[in-house]
Amino acid sequence: MDIKEKFGLRLKTLRKEKGLSQEELAERSGLNRPYISGIEQGKRNVSLEVMEKLAVAIEVGIGELVNF
Amino acid sequence: MDIKEKFGLRLKTLRKEKGLSQEELAERSGLNRPYISGIEQGKRNVSLEVMEKLAVAIEVGIGELVNF
Repeated sequence: MDIKEKFGLRLKTLRKEKGLSQEELAERSGLNRPYISGIEQGKRNVSLEVMEKLAVAIEVGIGELVNF
Repeated sequence: MDIKEKFGLRLKTLRKEKGLSQEELAERSGLNRPYISGIEQGKRNVSLEVMEKLAVAIEVGIGELVNF
């Protein structure tokens, strides 16, 4: 599994733990839903700034997002 | 300080702890020295794949790189 796939699974796990849909996460983070979906499918090489948006939206530290 | 600046400082700290020059880190990571320099100056919005290269080169987990 490459790092994009690991990140995608981690995001999906955290999102579900928070009881959020992809749509809700999209709204909170200011990213669009297809992009969130692409990340979770391991297709996106996300940047620091995107990670920060996701972390804030899910209310975790950035370290939690790459804790795999 | 924005997240790119935080990441840059963290990278610089870890690189120095390992006793590596920017040139050595560039060689180990397969990135070029000006790019490493730009990251450390907080100018680069690095991606997951770049973080992985840096983490492997410095011999730390990716979580360590964003531990700020």
